[in-house]
Amino acid sequence: MTTFYYFRDDYSEGCHPNILQALQETNLEQQIGYSNDRYSAEAKTLINEQLIGQHADIHFVSGGTQANLIVISAVLKPYEAVISAHTGHINLHEAGAIEATGHRVEAIDTSDGKLDVASITPLLNQVNNVNSVQPKMVYISNTTEMGTIYNKAELTALSDFCRANGLYLFLDGARLPSALTAIGNDLTLNDIAELTDIFYIGGTKNGGLLGEAIVIIHPELKKGFKFSIKQKGALLAKGRILGLQFRELFRANLIFELAAYANDRALEMVPAIENQGYSFMIPPCSNQLFPILPNPIIDELAKNYLFHTWQKIDGQHAAIRLVTSWATPATACDRFIADLKRLTVKYKNEATFH
Amino acid sequence: MTTFYYFRDDYSEGCHPNILQALQETNLEQQIGYSNDRYSAEAKTLINEQLIGQHADIHFVSGGTQANLIVISAVLKPYEAVISAHTGHINLHEAGAIEATGHRVEAIDTSDGKLDVASITPLLNQVNNVNSVQPKMVYISNTTEMGTIYNKAELTALSDFCRANGLYLFLDGARLPSALTAIGNDLTLNDIAELTDIFYIGGTKNGGLLGEAIVIIHPELKKGFKFSIKQKGALLAKGRILGLQFRELFRANLIFELAAYANDRALEMVPAIENQGYSFMIPPCSNQLFPILPNPIIDELAKNYLFHTWQKIDGQHAAIRLVTSWATPATACDRFIADLKRLTVKYKNEATFH
Amino acid sequence: MTTFYYFRDDYSEGCHPNILQALQETNLEQQIGYSNDRYSAEAKTLINEQLIGQHADIHFVSGGTQANLIVISAVLKPYEAVISAHTGHINLHEAGAIEATGHRVEAIDTSDGKLDVASITPLLNQVNNVNSVQPKMVYISNTTEMGTIYNKAELTALSDFCRANGLYLFLDGARLPSALTAIGNDLTLNDIAELTDIFYIGGTKNGGLLGEAIVIIHPELKKGFKFSIKQKGALLAKGRILGLQFRELFRANLIFELAAYANDRALEMVPAIENQGYSFMIPPCSNQLFPILPNPIIDELAKNYLFHTWQKIDGQHAAIRLVTSWATPATACDRFIADLKRLTVKYKNEATFH
Amino acid sequence: MTTFYYFRDDYSEGCHPNILQALQETNLEQQIGYSNDRYSAEAKTLINEQLIGQHADIHFVSGGTQANLIVISAVLKPYEAVISAHTGHINLHEAGAIEATGHRVEAIDTSDGKLDVASITPLLNQVNNVNSVQPKMVYISNTTEMGTIYNKAELTALSDFCRANGLYLFLDGARLPSALTAIGNDLTLNDIAELTDIFYIGGTKNGGLLGEAIVIIHPELKKGFKFSIKQKGALLAKGRILGLQFRELFRANLIFELAAYANDRALEMVPAIENQGYSFMIPPCSNQLFPILPNPIIDELAKNYLFHTWQKIDGQHAAIRLVTSWATPATACDRFIADLKRLTVKYKNEATFH
Repeated sequence: MTTFYYFRDDYSEGCHPNILQALQETNLEQQIGYSNDRYSAEAKTLINEQLIGQHADIHFVSGGTQANLIVISAVLKPYEAVISAHTGHINLHEAGAIEATGHRVEAIDTSDGKLDVASITPLLNQVNNVNSVQPKMVYISNTTEMGTIYNKAELTALSDFCRANGLYLFLDGARLPSALTAIGNDLTLNDIAELTDIFYIGGTKNGGLLGEAIVIIHPELKKGFKFSIKQKGALLAKGRILGLQFRELFRANLIFELAAYANDRALEMVPAIENQGYSFMIPPCSNQLFPILPNPIIDELAKNYLFHTWQKIDGQHAAIRLVTSWATPATACDRFIADLKRLTVKYKNEATFH
Repeated sequence: MTTFYYFRDDYSEGCHPNILQALQETNLEQQIGYSNDRYSAEAKTLINEQLIGQHADIHFVSGGTQANLIVISAVLKPYEAVISAHTGHINLHEAGAIEATGHRVEAIDTSDGKLDVASITPLLNQVNNVNSVQPKMVYISNTTEMGTIYNKAELTALSDFCRANGLYLFLDGARLPSALTAIGNDLTLNDIAELTDIFYIGGTKNGGLLGEAIVIIHPELKKGFKFSIKQKGALLAKGRILGLQFRELFRANLIFELAAYANDRALEMVPAIENQGYSFMIPPCSNQLFPILPNPIIDELAKNYLFHTWQKIDGQHAAIRLVTSWATPATACDRFIADLKRLTVKYKNEATFH
Repeated sequence: MTTFYYFRDDYSEGCHPNILQALQETNLEQQIGYSNDRYSAEAKTLINEQLIGQHADIHFVSGGTQANLIVISAVLKPYEAVISAHTGHINLHEAGAIEATGHRVEAIDTSDGKLDVASITPLLNQVNNVNSVQPKMVYISNTTEMGTIYNKAELTALSDFCRANGLYLFLDGARLPSALTAIGNDLTLNDIAELTDIFYIGGTKNGGLLGEAIVIIHPELKKGFKFSIKQKGALLAKGRILGLQFRELFRANLIFELAAYANDRALEMVPAIENQGYSFMIPPCSNQLFPILPNPIIDELAKNYLFHTWQKIDGQHAAIRLVTSWATPATACDRFIADLKRLTVKYKNEATFH
Repeated sequence: MTTFYYFRDDYSEGCHPNILQALQETNLEQQIGYSNDRYSAEAKTLINEQLIGQHADIHFVSGGTQANLIVISAVLKPYEAVISAHTGHINLHEAGAIEATGHRVEAIDTSDGKLDVASITPLLNQVNNVNSVQPKMVYISNTTEMGTIYNKAELTALSDFCRANGLYLFLDGARLPSALTAIGNDLTLNDIAELTDIFYIGGTKNGGLLGEAIVIIHPELKKGFKFSIKQKGALLAKGRILGLQFRELFRANLIFELAAYANDRALEMVPAIENQGYSFMIPPCSNQLFPILPNPIIDELAKNYLFHTWQKIDGQHAAIRLVTSWATPATACDRFIADLKRLTVKYKNEATFH
């Protein structure tokens, strides 16, 4: 049993060579610590250049859960809550990190991981009821944890609703570059900045070694943010390495190029999978695919590929999750498709597929 | 005005070339995320090999404040407090990170940054008084924030006292390699493991890009520790980069070799400084020096060197802090000493030093 | 528009006259503060006398939310969560008090406010998954927030399951006296002590001015509990008044007598309501009734009675909640029934109701 | 060995008879819960009537530690700290309650329990240093934990300084009625409201069964305060009993009359103690006395009186704390003085005092 390739996630490899190159070139330059270095300043400039008509405060932290817990605990008062899709990263995948900062996550069931005005509205009934926690922030992710994306009309509707109801809108962009290069996307980074109050851009899942860039738009949320980063243990002494990731990733839009590449690798597998007669739990649009396969084929594939079995569909089928990255070679996808074809033929020909 | 060199701290440069080399070589290898990678496993083995007769649980996190807040909040019950020297990093330099996890830091005044039985004993009077927070952990650092070290007799006395009184002993080792290679040191890494309940070894300040290795000795403290790391946002998706730092640093004891080098650079400046007629606020023993200099000379030096002015001594003098690192070239030290000599002569020859 | 009676809750009046009498008689006796008084000791003895073969640690606090947050935060480690019915008081009615102590409430949908093994089991899948908060406690209430009760077989099954799976079982007994005197109950206070790890007995809703008696059975949970009470601001200087409530309430089982009285007042209304052709959202068994009434009748009743409209049933009907207390006069119930009858006749006779 | 009297504190008895009378009279009146009752409204009106030219938001909670932790956690952002005298209640007597809400207490050494501009100023050096917690509130108590008081000039200076430096001024008034009736006081309740941002008036130590009235002056601090009360478990279902305490205490200024009575009982003992040749650790001005007595006499007195031995003075002497209350009979004071005289004579006549 040999593992040919990991389609498990988009953080199984190191980083884009440009970053290693920059680490090498700058290694012995002395820089001031705690994110007061030159590379961080350069990275912030590059990101702000993509925003029209406003100047964002930008802070770099190491990872997504860290970004989420810092943003939410910095913004909310103790009795305020954050609204999330039930499938949201903060609700299911952070070991209670948000609650550990004292805040409730109000989770809403969705079919596709996306929030909208209709699903949020009922929670506003509890506003001003002293026995209820007070919702004050809406958390969304783009792409979502189900690989879906928001389009401009959807995000605008959500943004308008939040502003009308005194709710902050926070976008978890751990896979924002994937979203902004996805099929069906009509949003720009500047749109994200205009429609949300605070968001972040993931480096870890888009070619960096580590790092998320928190972009603060709403002026009220800018004040004192650096203290929140320090207090949560997220201020690296050598903050230079975070700055350097983003300087390289935002030079010539490398980060979006890498995301587009990863999306392409996934999307090129779609017709081949459909041609074998399989459908998808979620319509594919970015670097996450959720094909529904027969259980015996899943078992066979698992001998040579790493992936998550995401959800049972029925007694004979489950959806698996395949994730491609900036580093996925086209040959790995080809091999997977070839193996799927072979197993599909075998499966159809055998009465019992062991 | 040109800055010749930063003696400001030991994290102004990148990392030892071996680490960059390892990042390069392993970059496209696929590894499981969240510290379940092969390099982390190898690093843990290398560290455990230095411990005799016990097997530690080892976890890698990104920085010192993060290590401190995770350890303390994981170990203490809500009503328990940690005892620290007033100068302790957790007390003065972490923006309230420990209190943010709900725990009080009981600070004790010291002359040299070191705790001992006599200074801790009075705090035990409040044990079992319902109106008092309950001390349950002693936090020390080695080297301390004042550049001093514990010897084996001192650490043994503290350890015995803690065990006799039901207190956990936690050692912040952000500069532990400096301490274990300092003048006057008679402790080994294994001694640290035998005498404390939990400690960490700093990578950031000893040649790594980032990373601290938390070493858990006390069996009760091992349980569930990974959840504490995740919940505080400290579990990197690409945990491989932390593992790789420590694998390289512990190969052939590189980390101690680098610390010894940094200590040497500092200690070689000591006689030259003394020969100019200056004394030290703290007797020098590792990579931090606290020479007491006349204010006008400090002002002049500050034009070409970065350093912290640590403490006012009298109306005419202050102690500055000079820190060397694994990357400090001997030539930088030589130049600093030459400048100090030149300024000293000039200062003595002028009635009023401009 | 005159309000004849509040059926809104069971805390709209003061307290049973015996308590006022005891306050009067003991008023000038000097007692040690912070619950070290004689009355508290006497109350603890009276409660422990009802428990066979074990000695509980008993602590008095002021209210239910306070009891819940102290118990949960005292018992759980930072990364551990409490499981509750979605309708549970800690989930819906405490303004995020549990999350404010750092812990997630894992909510489970139920039809009747009760948890069972089948509903809890799926949550155990996340045990040991580092990205998931770890369930460690099951929270139930008896009577539940929907007026239902647990019988001995149900509570035993839950208790066995919890013990087999390393989960603490915590029973919120704000209305435990109502439950133990409800129709269908086969549990004793001693059964509660044998089947749970920690629970509390409500004084506030059962004839006291204030106060809940937390009863700790599991030896591990006893240690240091007083510090948790103090740290959450719940240790009254004049703890004597809490002790006195419970001394009086547990003398000659007054508390159960009062609960039975309240249940009787509610249950006597049931046949009269049914005779008018109405059904109940929840089968009545204690002092909370949830009759389903036509909206126009609810509107009319609301002119003279205070009650909560609990839940919309369909376009024309809603369930209201009627609650009786130890102080509800039979005449108030009679008047309500008479008004309901009158309105029912009127409603049936009119094509359009007013 | 018989205990004649407790001079241990001012909460050893029940409450003033007017309160018991009011509890009796209102007992069966139905009131809306959670502090929306009529008595609370009446009490708030009575308190606001003492304030000129401003309308305060007033909330009733059960005790002092509760009031402190709610106010501080409601007002501060996560990275902000509160400044207190080292002897402050929040620093020494609340089991880490403030830190448990996530905030550091910055303690300042004082000789008399009082803060002033000179002692606070050095802490402002850390403002805007990312490694330091940010001071944002000054906590004082009046009377202090050492029985001293602020005069108008002192409080005005502190208030001006706080306003000039963006610090909130919070006054713990657990013994505010004692302060406002103390020897040397020149402050009114209205002055307190004008010079602080938020304060509270203690009921527990001034004739009530329980209860502190939090008075919010600064408009920014008023918003959402009720949620903070609920979330910390401090919102009593029968909030009526808190309202009733303060309605009775503020009728015809009963609370100040009671405080003056208590002060008188203490101060009448002063000349008698001095006439025996004893001095006081703190100049007496209110209901707390700290006489310095020979250890053998303290031991003898302790056989018949309860009091705290406060502080060792030298090898032969200690200061004890004597506290009088609204309920202390003059005869108890007389008896204590007589016993002190008798023991003093005996002590002087014996070479060795057994």
